[in-house]
Amino acid sequence: MSDALQFHLEHTCGQARAGMITTRRGSIPTPVFMPVGTQATVKALSPLELEEAGASIILGNTYHLYLRPGHELIRRFGGLHRFMAWDRPILTDSGGFQVFSLGDLRTISEEGVEFRSHLDGSRHFIGPEQAMDIQEALGSDIMMAFDECPPSTADYQYVQRSLQLTTRWAERCLQAWRQRDRQALFGIIQGGLYQDLRLQSLTQLMELDFPGYAIGGLSVGEPPCQMYEVIENLAPHMPADRPRYLMGVGTPVDLVEAVARGVDMFDCVMPTRNARNGTLFTSTGKLNIKNARYADDHEPVDARCECYTCRTFSRGYLRHLYRTGEILGLRLNSLHNIHYYINLMQQIRGAILENRFDVLRDSVLDIYK
Amino acid sequence: MSDALQFHLEHTCGQARAGMITTRRGSIPTPVFMPVGTQATVKALSPLELEEAGASIILGNTYHLYLRPGHELIRRFGGLHRFMAWDRPILTDSGGFQVFSLGDLRTISEEGVEFRSHLDGSRHFIGPEQAMDIQEALGSDIMMAFDECPPSTADYQYVQRSLQLTTRWAERCLQAWRQRDRQALFGIIQGGLYQDLRLQSLTQLMELDFPGYAIGGLSVGEPPCQMYEVIENLAPHMPADRPRYLMGVGTPVDLVEAVARGVDMFDCVMPTRNARNGTLFTSTGKLNIKNARYADDHEPVDARCECYTCRTFSRGYLRHLYRTGEILGLRLNSLHNIHYYINLMQQIRGAILENRFDVLRDSVLDIYK
Ligand SMILES: [Zn+2]
Ligand SMILES: [Zn+2]
Repeated sequence: MSDALQFHLEHTCGQARAGMITTRRGSIPTPVFMPVGTQATVKALSPLELEEAGASIILGNTYHLYLRPGHELIRRFGGLHRFMAWDRPILTDSGGFQVFSLGDLRTISEEGVEFRSHLDGSRHFIGPEQAMDIQEALGSDIMMAFDECPPSTADYQYVQRSLQLTTRWAERCLQAWRQRDRQALFGIIQGGLYQDLRLQSLTQLMELDFPGYAIGGLSVGEPPCQMYEVIENLAPHMPADRPRYLMGVGTPVDLVEAVARGVDMFDCVMPTRNARNGTLFTSTGKLNIKNARYADDHEPVDARCECYTCRTFSRGYLRHLYRTGEILGLRLNSLHNIHYYINLMQQIRGAILENRFDVLRDSVLDIYK
Repeated sequence: MSDALQFHLEHTCGQARAGMITTRRGSIPTPVFMPVGTQATVKALSPLELEEAGASIILGNTYHLYLRPGHELIRRFGGLHRFMAWDRPILTDSGGFQVFSLGDLRTISEEGVEFRSHLDGSRHFIGPEQAMDIQEALGSDIMMAFDECPPSTADYQYVQRSLQLTTRWAERCLQAWRQRDRQALFGIIQGGLYQDLRLQSLTQLMELDFPGYAIGGLSVGEPPCQMYEVIENLAPHMPADRPRYLMGVGTPVDLVEAVARGVDMFDCVMPTRNARNGTLFTSTGKLNIKNARYADDHEPVDARCECYTCRTFSRGYLRHLYRTGEILGLRLNSLHNIHYYINLMQQIRGAILENRFDVLRDSVLDIYK
């Protein structure tokens, strides 16, 4: 474990877990959804709004922040928390996923990855030591080990070699990890859809003893049932006393299905990205505010939602804002969706603590399947 | 006067006036700046933020709202206040200015104006009766009479004929004005840069006895000194017991110069539009947040400003948000600029009440000239 993070497993309901992560910047009740603040802002929302929505932790993207405004600049500002005025916990990813999905002309070596910036074509190198140094500059409360994310089309042999590289990189991350009393470090399990490789990856990382473990390389195009299967087979082997983080997931159904299989932490751009496209999550399912049927609709997006958007505005008004391209529409939609996701996780947690998670899971599946 | 609006002139300092407009939706201390809510939203800001910034009245654009979402739809929502969740006063323009500046293929007749929508080319007709009906549907607290806005290049003869048409239209607006206990109606003085025509227009409108008078057709490209001259010669002839509204103006210098000549009310897209372009108004002058010099600047935009932006974020962070095209940047910049404008008007009012307006005016001129 790390002095920077404690995890207390409070209760289980089947495989579903309710717990509490404690950091020096505050506690994180789990299961938790972490809004994504890619470029030092959760798109369209202010830190005040995120706090009011009940966000207990947000995510920052190392790759993006490294390129713009640069981690050394953020270091001079006293870290990402002060830079973006968010004083609750922050988790930063390692940059690995974006290097592999956004960087051009990547060259992977034992040392790390050389790539060109997707912004201006400039050449960069990130390896485990650089990823740790950048995240130290950002000052996140939870850092992620630098991993290789193989393409979803990679064959068994590639995935096997890749996860072994990820393990060696994880070891170097541990060695480069300095602020152990301030920043926790999670390892990332790879192995694609190969069950034995997932277990191999997990076993290797557990030997290194991380304060938390993430499941990477899922939700990259495979059918949801395959993702659920990987989690279902993997989670029972993961240490019960460490938080489990499923990276980049997902839909409301994904959340309940992964919680049902023992996952504690999630992040996804879906609520904010969908909001900007006019897709809203509600207690009765998805709602596309672009639709002409809402033009004269005086009801709120979700009568059961207590967010500023739903307390104040009608579907008709939101549809007008969407149609006219008004920024306020992007704001109000984003605010609502983030509320929905955070509220859903709070409901999930409550249901686990009261041994009625299965009922809640079924109701989410009913609505969203 | 109208039952819908009372104006009390509290104090003068030279020609500068401090007053109080009272409506059934609240009081408006003058001089006042009205943020522009073109499409039923002051761009990038929530109604809550406008209230917190101290906005006592905002403006809606009849032309835009007529086209999208349509005034009949807004009527069904209970009016613009309920549609956009703003319960303080709203002033709507008559649509005239936009019909003339945005509408295509305009045909002006005694009856009104036929034009094509700038959005989809559809054909429309607005005359005085339509302008009043639309504004009645919007339910604004202050309506504007429908006027012709001649091009800034129009000659004496054209401007003279035009202002007479505007007077006849104003008379028809008075006749079509129904909700006299709920909605006030202002006449609009035209006459271009011709002093005698301005007085002619004013005299004709005063005979019709409006609850307030606006000066239209200025700030359309002429040098500021010419605008100030028109106001300076016109204001002393305007009734002292009615509010005076200079439409579509302006810069901080314009505001103090027009107040110095007896104007009470202003609206302008400048604070919000400039904000979205990265230009911020501060107590020490304009600041362009795009500039690389602010990248590493840990200071707030304006240390003397008490807005959320200045209380919470650095110039370096705002520059990062601008550079990365983040919506939060547009929000925080807009919030600050609206705060600046409203605060400036509050300072102006305080200075008038304390007979020290000239000192304040000089300091604004020092900073912004
Ligand atoms: Zn809501
Ligand atoms: Zn400010």
